[in-house]
Amino acid sequence: MSAFPHRHLLGIEPLAPADIQMVLDTADGLKEVLDRPIKKVPVLRGKTVVNLFYEASTRTRSSFEIAQKVLSADSLSISTATSSVQKGETLLDTAKNLEAMNPDMIVIRHASSGAPHFLARHCRSAIVNAGDGAHEHPTQALLDALTLRQRKGRLKGLRVAIVGDLLHSRVARSNLWLLSKMGASVVLCAPPTLVPPGIERLAPVTWRIEEAVEGADAIMVLRIQRERMTGGYLPSPREFFNLFGLTEERVRRAKKDVLILHPGPMNRGVEIASEVADGPYSVILDQVTNGVAVRMAVLYLLLGGSAGGTS
Amino acid sequence: MSAFPHRHLLGIEPLAPADIQMVLDTADGLKEVLDRPIKKVPVLRGKTVVNLFYEASTRTRSSFEIAQKVLSADSLSISTATSSVQKGETLLDTAKNLEAMNPDMIVIRHASSGAPHFLARHCRSAIVNAGDGAHEHPTQALLDALTLRQRKGRLKGLRVAIVGDLLHSRVARSNLWLLSKMGASVVLCAPPTLVPPGIERLAPVTWRIEEAVEGADAIMVLRIQRERMTGGYLPSPREFFNLFGLTEERVRRAKKDVLILHPGPMNRGVEIASEVADGPYSVILDQVTNGVAVRMAVLYLLLGGSAGGTS
Amino acid sequence: MSAFPHRHLLGIEPLAPADIQMVLDTADGLKEVLDRPIKKVPVLRGKTVVNLFYEASTRTRSSFEIAQKVLSADSLSISTATSSVQKGETLLDTAKNLEAMNPDMIVIRHASSGAPHFLARHCRSAIVNAGDGAHEHPTQALLDALTLRQRKGRLKGLRVAIVGDLLHSRVARSNLWLLSKMGASVVLCAPPTLVPPGIERLAPVTWRIEEAVEGADAIMVLRIQRERMTGGYLPSPREFFNLFGLTEERVRRAKKDVLILHPGPMNRGVEIASEVADGPYSVILDQVTNGVAVRMAVLYLLLGGSAGGTS
Repeated sequence: MSAFPHRHLLGIEPLAPADIQMVLDTADGLKEVLDRPIKKVPVLRGKTVVNLFYEASTRTRSSFEIAQKVLSADSLSISTATSSVQKGETLLDTAKNLEAMNPDMIVIRHASSGAPHFLARHCRSAIVNAGDGAHEHPTQALLDALTLRQRKGRLKGLRVAIVGDLLHSRVARSNLWLLSKMGASVVLCAPPTLVPPGIERLAPVTWRIEEAVEGADAIMVLRIQRERMTGGYLPSPREFFNLFGLTEERVRRAKKDVLILHPGPMNRGVEIASEVADGPYSVILDQVTNGVAVRMAVLYLLLGGSAGGTS
Repeated sequence: MSAFPHRHLLGIEPLAPADIQMVLDTADGLKEVLDRPIKKVPVLRGKTVVNLFYEASTRTRSSFEIAQKVLSADSLSISTATSSVQKGETLLDTAKNLEAMNPDMIVIRHASSGAPHFLARHCRSAIVNAGDGAHEHPTQALLDALTLRQRKGRLKGLRVAIVGDLLHSRVARSNLWLLSKMGASVVLCAPPTLVPPGIERLAPVTWRIEEAVEGADAIMVLRIQRERMTGGYLPSPREFFNLFGLTEERVRRAKKDVLILHPGPMNRGVEIASEVADGPYSVILDQVTNGVAVRMAVLYLLLGGSAGGTS
Repeated sequence: MSAFPHRHLLGIEPLAPADIQMVLDTADGLKEVLDRPIKKVPVLRGKTVVNLFYEASTRTRSSFEIAQKVLSADSLSISTATSSVQKGETLLDTAKNLEAMNPDMIVIRHASSGAPHFLARHCRSAIVNAGDGAHEHPTQALLDALTLRQRKGRLKGLRVAIVGDLLHSRVARSNLWLLSKMGASVVLCAPPTLVPPGIERLAPVTWRIEEAVEGADAIMVLRIQRERMTGGYLPSPREFFNLFGLTEERVRRAKKDVLILHPGPMNRGVEIASEVADGPYSVILDQVTNGVAVRMAVLYLLLGGSAGGTS
């Protein structure tokens, strides 16, 4: 296997289709470690990873931490609640200071788009974007792709509907890049107040969910942030559910073997009906499992874990 | 040794006396690891434990974490401050998502009685109850029993007084189950506002502490939560101390070799006098040490750590 | 090498010059581990360290945690946000309880001067002061000294200016002790409202920064806490910068090869100009790297890690 040609994972946009495939293939290979009775391989022993989270996140942080532990890396998790950020330090000073402690990688989640890119320009450590503002969330798109590929055998030619708050969604943006690069076709669907201007140049947009899911191989439901519900973007949660919520009736317009994805945490009864979330087409928990595998792959490829092997 | 016949530790109520004895014997055996210069055995290497704490707790969380590290398990601790719970996710979705990351065990503390049982019905991981509402706190009762057995050589036939806020105490409830199952006799003592209805069917109740501690082999003092002091349950902390606080004078009514237990954290001068807490009969710090040993035993028995041995 | 003659590291004041030199020499020896591809040595395997932080701190806590992981110790970090302190437990009860879990060391940061000394009198574990009130911050002074010694080849005879909020600074106090013991000469500089009474007996004090930095080999800039800015101590951040901020112009009064130190986090444009912080004389990031090395040395010396060696 040739080396991964990037020092950082800042987004899906800068990746070539071959890079994406390398991450997915590596994740497929590493995934079986998670099913072993002893879920531990020494490939990243003695490597230090700092998880620097400026936004709360159970799922993403836990997923990265577990991936790090399974690969035997040492990890240090910092959340803003306990960080010097509150003391008025700049992001760059915080990052430079962490870096002076010689970590091999910094995983960063930040409310500002571009924060990981800024660190990558100024730090020597490998930087992984764990979500930056409304910009990108590359490991989410990669785990979604891994899930689709496992179930459908391919990404090319799939028809994928992405439904919900497109305006604020880094998940939508990273998936749009990834699916387009891998030859899938995407249809976007959101209320007019939640469509970012110009996005129609990247994929067709509709305000009617029935139209979006028509014949879809997969439907990605986006999370509605609670603060949007009271921010003038939406009339009410109930109204949103009536117009855009993914119900069983709407799922029936998609292909017979459609897959339902959601990045979590779910607002049941708002963007998705419980029957759909827990129904036979849902691969929402597969996504979570694949999230650990994809993060193991990213850690492995960026930290050059080739020396130790996975045995 | 035969196998522990439970997949979860949800409470003391479902345990047979032989199960309780197996946990205590295992804890006795593992305890010596804590006195070694190198406090580390590889029996749970590659096992992942998630500590999911919906209520703050230094002592219980630290005790579980140390037990996990001594046994070489990987642990991931999540407290509500940083969790998706704040994002409106249900307990079940949080648990299902954590479980999709393939942990071997979830240790849960939750303000709602029955939360661990709910997880046990819906998850594949082993579930350990680290305190659920006013229901049970089984590892606390087990560490109390280990402490009593070490000092008294037996549980059977002991006379134990449990004094304080019975109404809100999961510690009292788990101890009442355990002591009754193991053949000890229990006397309960609380102000009338803090006696749960019907509890007199399980053990005799008195409002007079002097009567409760009379001839006792052990006195378990319960913690008064600060919010109870202003909640109409108690006239004042000083009044509570006057009527129900464990003073040296009251201790003298018990047996000469009485043991004083408290689950911590203590309110000195409210439910217990400092002279008693720090006095010769106090085994309060033994309880803490035994807490680590009991949690090691529970981890070991539930995760089937037999493969590695403790050498 | 003879053994370190202290069980605790409570401050610089109780140390002999030979003790300080032993810490610095040990740090120098351990530092190269941080440059290895596999940053992990087994010298403290099976040792447990509790980091008990009553004040928020990214830098110091992270630095201790990384030092612990590199030396393979098990660490448990407790911050007040999740601790029993909120439940009204005394510091001593918290410490006694932690100690009953058999840790080998407790690293404590506390807002009260003397808190670590109090623990040292009552606990068996080794105690390390990670900052106590306005009293001492010994590992900071040691890392500062390591940085100076690396760059200047010696401490003896150096002229060091310490500039800023002397009144509230444990960093100033520990450095003043250390530099005096090692034969450096110190000049202190602060606005009159921020000079602790009597300090002029330990080192000369001036209100004019130009005078303080004149001919200095090193300038240590202290952090101004934000709460001081509105507390009547200072007219305004801008006024402070005008009178006491370390600017390039002021640096030019020092020796040609002056070193600029700051304990972080920095308030750029308040106590230090950005050009100086990022300029050629700044060793601020060296300090951070050396912080990990010094903490490794302290862990190693206090926990008697001689058995394993560093290979």
